[in-house]
Amino acid sequence: MSKQRLPLLETADPDDCRVPLVAEPLDADQAERLAPSFKALGDPVRLRLLSLIASHAGGEVCVCDLTDAFDLKAPTISHHLKVLKDTGLVTAERRGTWVYYRAERAALDLLSGLLAVPAEAAA
Amino acid sequence: MSKQRLPLLETADPDDCRVPLVAEPLDADQAERLAPSFKALGDPVRLRLLSLIASHAGGEVCVCDLTDAFDLKAPTISHHLKVLKDTGLVTAERRGTWVYYRAERAALDLLSGLLAVPAEAAA
Repeated sequence: MSKQRLPLLETADPDDCRVPLVAEPLDADQAERLAPSFKALGDPVRLRLLSLIASHAGGEVCVCDLTDAFDLKAPTISHHLKVLKDTGLVTAERRGTWVYYRAERAALDLLSGLLAVPAEAAA
Repeated sequence: MSKQRLPLLETADPDDCRVPLVAEPLDADQAERLAPSFKALGDPVRLRLLSLIASHAGGEVCVCDLTDAFDLKAPTISHHLKVLKDTGLVTAERRGTWVYYRAERAALDLLSGLLAVPAEAAA
C-alpha cells in the first residue's frame, strides 16, 4: 500500500496540519499526504456523498439510504464510498446485511484548519 | 467555458457555502460548483504552490520565485498555476517581464468553512 493510500489521520502529523497554509508553506511530504484527501473531495458525487453522511441525523447512514439519493448504479456509489473510506474521510461498519458510513469529523476538521484564513491574515 | 471551469467565487453562492457540510447536505449544483476547487487542491505540487503563494510575505509571489522551489520544468509549474487560477484559488497579474500570483483568501475561507466542524457537532 503506497503512502498516498493511507487514511489521512494515520499519516498526517496533527501539529503540522494545524498550521494553515496561509501561515506556513507545506513541505513536499505534507503535500503528498494531504493531496489525496482533497482529490477525493474533487468529485461532485463524492462531495455530495460525504455531505449526506456527515450531516445525517445520528451521524451515520446506511448505504441503502445513500444509493437512493443518486441516479447512479450501486457499484458506482460503492466505488466513490471506497475512495472516501481509503482516504479516511469516512469510516464504514458492516452490521448484518448493510454497511453503515460515518464521517471522520477529525479529518474534515484537519482539512478545514489547513485552508483556514486567520482573521489577522484575511485583509 | 463550462460551468465547472468558472472560478469558485464567481459561481458559488456565498450563503450556501457558509453552511458546513456537516450541517446540511450539498445539492447537486453546489457539489458541481465546489468539486473543481477541491480537485485543484488534490495534487501535491498544486497544494505546495498554493501554500507558497498564500504564505508569502506581502501576499504575492513572482512566478520566478516559485519555479526555484520545485525540481520541475517551468511549463509544468505554469500548468499547475493555471489550474489554480482557473478555479479561482489564485489570481495572477503580469507586471513587466514577470507574472505575480496572489492567493484568493476568500476562496480558501469558503472551502475551509464548508469543511468546518462546528464545536457542537464535533462530538
